[in-house]
Parts: sequence; structure tokens; C-alpha cells
Amino acid sequence: MTSENFYAGKKILITGGLGFIGSTLAIRLLELGAQVTLLDGLIADLGANYFNIKSIKDRVEVVEAGLGDRPLVDPLVKGRELVFNIGMHSCHLKSMTDPLFDLQTNVLPQIQFLESLRFHNPQARVIYIGTRAQFGQALTIPITENTPPNPKDIYAASKQAVEWYHLLYQKICGLEVTSLRLGNTYGPRHQMRHAQYGVQNFLIRQALEDQEIKIFGDGSQKREMIYIDDIVSCLLLLGEKTQCVDQVYCVGSAESITFLELVEAIIRACGSGRYVHVPWPEDRKSIEVGDVVTDFSKLTAHTGWKPTTLLAEGLLKTADFYRKNRQYYW
Amino acid sequence: MTSENFYAGKKILITGGLGFIGSTLAIRLLELGAQVTLLDGLIADLGANYFNIKSIKDRVEVVEAGLGDRPLVDPLVKGRELVFNIGMHSCHLKSMTDPLFDLQTNVLPQIQFLESLRFHNPQARVIYIGTRAQFGQALTIPITENTPPNPKDIYAASKQAVEWYHLLYQKICGLEVTSLRLGNTYGPRHQMRHAQYGVQNFLIRQALEDQEIKIFGDGSQKREMIYIDDIVSCLLLLGEKTQCVDQVYCVGSAESITFLELVEAIIRACGSGRYVHVPWPEDRKSIEVGDVVTDFSKLTAHTGWKPTTLLAEGLLKTADFYRKNRQYYW
Repeated sequence: MTSENFYAGKKILITGGLGFIGSTLAIRLLELGAQVTLLDGLIADLGANYFNIKSIKDRVEVVEAGLGDRPLVDPLVKGRELVFNIGMHSCHLKSMTDPLFDLQTNVLPQIQFLESLRFHNPQARVIYIGTRAQFGQALTIPITENTPPNPKDIYAASKQAVEWYHLLYQKICGLEVTSLRLGNTYGPRHQMRHAQYGVQNFLIRQALEDQEIKIFGDGSQKREMIYIDDIVSCLLLLGEKTQCVDQVYCVGSAESITFLELVEAIIRACGSGRYVHVPWPEDRKSIEVGDVVTDFSKLTAHTGWKPTTLLAEGLLKTADFYRKNRQYYW
Repeated sequence: MTSENFYAGKKILITGGLGFIGSTLAIRLLELGAQVTLLDGLIADLGANYFNIKSIKDRVEVVEAGLGDRPLVDPLVKGRELVFNIGMHSCHLKSMTDPLFDLQTNVLPQIQFLESLRFHNPQARVIYIGTRAQFGQALTIPITENTPPNPKDIYAASKQAVEWYHLLYQKICGLEVTSLRLGNTYGPRHQMRHAQYGVQNFLIRQALEDQEIKIFGDGSQKREMIYIDDIVSCLLLLGEKTQCVDQVYCVGSAESITFLELVEAIIRACGSGRYVHVPWPEDRKSIEVGDVVTDFSKLTAHTGWKPTTLLAEGLLKTADFYRKNRQYYW
């Protein structure tokens, strides 16, 4: 659990603040009394959505700018006690069809953002959001922090490089970095317009619309689904614990399920939808990573964090949110 | 050994073609009857030097352009049977003082170059030059291709990312990539104006000038020195062997020596110079990688390559070259 008062009055910057994770984190931080600024580049097809922050819009500062916009970002990083750096795209497929998009969205602005920090807040505490995709087709099962990176797409290779850049800025200027390599995260406030990333969230839309969900192959690959509130709790703990500085963490779920079981659970939670098995499309197959099984005992040992939301419960909350707010996400 | 006629008539592009490795490779390729084009961005303080190609200047095409200059580079990659992609900076220290320089020199132009290949020569055979620095402070001794990357500076992190990008372009468009992770390479045609990279070459200049060479600490860290002609032989074999496609290779030397022994050997070969032990400077210490011991048996198994130049012999040839051509390198 986060200490009662740790976040009260803290000046915090969240990049990607209008997106799924950034906005949910901001809502929780305001409940804890923090002063929150959201930086967001509103890049097309990503998750930025003003409806995400409807309940807090009068209590947060929002700055619309890319992370690499030095004239705007330099003054913004000054004096922040904590930075949650979440503002990146996560489109695996697009990174393979347009690697330059990946570089210009996830790599170049990140180095520019790190330069802003270096010259205007060099010892800031920064929580970087990495991805389980950095492990790619995992070279060890279960995955731990010692599993070597093995990216299967440009997106994942870049995320690994940017994680290293972050950690190396500790040597460059003293930045205090923690990286959390996120797995599949689901819940309210995710973008629902397309399946280019966060496919598990898109399945919920398909089920709510009573569509036929396509399962590639037999759907027997193992998956871990983490509810957004559990990720927010985790980020808050990482921001608080000084022993997490200069560390990388994996995160996982309490329940291990197959992709097929996930689809069945989504259909149950939504009360609608069907599924059909189809062959793997080539582009998906080439970036498919196989079973995902994570040992997150280091995270638990360092922070006390454990996931507390069961899949059935999280899916019900998620389906309920989108049923009510469909017009803002479809 | 390279097959007698494999390179005869082959159309070959070498990036970084005016530099140390690119120019020496070009000279050898012309001897083998290849048609060679050199692409070089002539970036300040790197190794580009027209004297390097003095003996072949009438028989090679030279194009002065950055690798990311699509209008110039697109037509240049067309129809090339082989591309040796060597055109990158290797300044560890500068990558830490100016990470944006690293990104703009080694990452962005490389992705743009890969895009040129994708749209104008998508199944080209490409030999990418990686670096031993990708292993950083090696997580296993000896280093093999399975040693996880562990970069200690921005340069090394970027080189790893760009190696992944290359290998992933096989999935994107069918590019046939081999990466050779180079260790310390020495010999004629290296830049000798500063010690920002290729420090072992700069030591030769210091000895030739009868200067006092500074050894940081006791100099007991293990090093491998590979003579340029051995690297060129290796590159030629990698370009020829189809089983090397989609593979990464480490390369090493026949003799394992300490840094102190290297300095002593350089002073012997030059017949001048002295040394003194001094404490590690902070900036060097933070990127020092410790012992370097490489198991390159995979490379030998796949290509038959072994280093054939002994250190004493290579150093004598090197000292002799710079004594004669000092005015073009100092």
C-alpha cells in the first residue's frame, strides 16, 4: 500500500496524460492530494481522449505538446518531484509497416525529453513504462527481470533502447529511474477505436457489439491480464520506494489464462459476443510471442505489490464503463 | 578463405567507405574484382579520410552523403548484391555528453537507410557492423552470441537497437542480414587525431611521438586486439556464406592480453614512448567494461575464420604505415 501522505502536495508530471494509464493514474493522484500536470501530444490513433479526464478536468493542468517540444517541455519539467513517463505509442504492427513513425514517436522525442530533464531537473525521479514485449519470444519461462531482451518488432526494440537510455541518464546527470515492463493491461479509458494495440480491450468492444471474435489458431497461448487499477497501485508504489531507483521490474497477473479462456471470460462478462477460430494472419504470426508467464516476485519483494482484481471482476467493471460511455470511445 | 571468384564483378556498396574499415575492405574487394561504391557522410571528427583510398581512387565511385539522405541514397542502393553497413560513429564518451548526436548520427540515418533498402533493394544481403560494447560489462565470461546485451553507454544501447532493427527488416521486407559485433580493431587507416574512439590506435600515435601514455589504474583489464586485415577477411567470409544470414557473430583475437601488456607491446613496436599509471577519470570509469574475453567459435564454425595476424606483427605494420603517412593522419 502507498503511504497515506506520500503524494499529498507532490508536484507530478505525467506524459501521455490523456491516455489510458496516464489519466487513470492522474485521477488517483488527485485523490491523494498531488498537484498533477498532464503532457500529451494527442497523436492520431493513440489513446489521448479528453473524456478520460472529465471528472478531474478543473483540477489538472493539461499541456498539449509532444515530448520533444523543448521550448514547451523545458519549463514544464522544472521542479517536478516525480515524472511518470507514459507518453509513447504501442502499435506493434504499425512499427513494422512504418518504422520511421516508431522512431519519430517513441525514440527521438524520448531522448529530447530526457535532455529537458537533464538540463532542467537532472535528479528527477522518473518512472518509465517499458513493455513485456521487450522480452519478445521469451528466452526463459517464466519471464523475470534477468530474461534477456528479445524483441520481435521495431516497437519492442525501441522500447528496450529507450529504457536503456533512461537508465544511462543516471550516469549522465543523476536521473533516478525505475522501469516497469507492462504486460497486457485492460480496463476503462483505453482507446476502443481499433485493434492496433491493446487487442484485449478491443475484444471487449467486439463482445459488447455482439460480434464474432476471431481467435487466431487454437488460442492456447498463455496470457496475463492486469486490471488498470492494479497497475496504478503499482506505479504509485514504485514512485514512493527509493529502493526501486535504478531498477527494472516485471509485472504479472494472479491468474494465468489462455487466449481462448480470455475470450470466453469477456463474452461472459459482456453477456454477448461469439468466437470463431481462424488461421494466423502472416503479419500477426510474425510478431506473436508465444506463452506469457511472468515471475514478478522482485516487484512484490521491493514494494509489497500484488494484483488484487480478479479477471471476472475487472471485466465486469470494464464492460459496465464502456456500456455507459460508448459514445466517447467508439 | 573466401572463394576465388565470389566477389568478381559483384556490385557492392560500403557505407562509411572513407573510414578505417570501409576503405580497407574496399581495397581488398577491388583486388577481388568487385565493383565498389563508397557512401560516406564525412561527419566531423570521425574516420573519413580521402588518403585512405588514395591507391584505389580512380577505381571506386565515392558518394558524399549521409546515410539518411533518401534522394541520394535511394538510387544508390538499387541493384547492389551486397551492402557493408559500416557508416556509424563510435564515440562512447560523446554519446554520453551528447545523446542527441548519437541518435541523429547512428539511429535515425540507419532507419532511413533501411527504408531505402526496403523500397529499392528489399532482399539485399547486408553485413551490419555491431560492437562488442553491446555486451557492456559482460554478463557471462567468455562472451558469446548468447551473452545478453548490457550496454554501458548511449552509443552501445543504440548499436544494439540498430542491430535489432536490421534483423527485423528481414521480417519487414526480406533483408538478409548478418551482424558482426566488432571488438578492438587496429591497423593502418584509423583516424589518429583524437582518442575519443579507437583509443588503442591513438596509443600508437602517442608512442610514435615518444609521449608518456597514461594507463588508468593498474591496466590489468583483459583486452583483445584484432588486426584490420583479419576483420576484412572475416567480413568477406560473412558476405559469401549464406548460412550466416539472420545471424549475429562475436569476433575475437588469438592472443588475450592485458591493457598494460598492450601498451608495452606498442612501445616495443614503435621503438619509442613511455607509460605511467594514473587514477581512472570519472567519465572513463563509468563506461569501462572490465575484462574482454570472447568465444568466437560460432564464427569459426560457420565461416572457417580465424585471426592470423599476431599482435607484434600487426603493430609493426601499423607503426610503419603511420611513420610513412603521418601527415595524412595527425
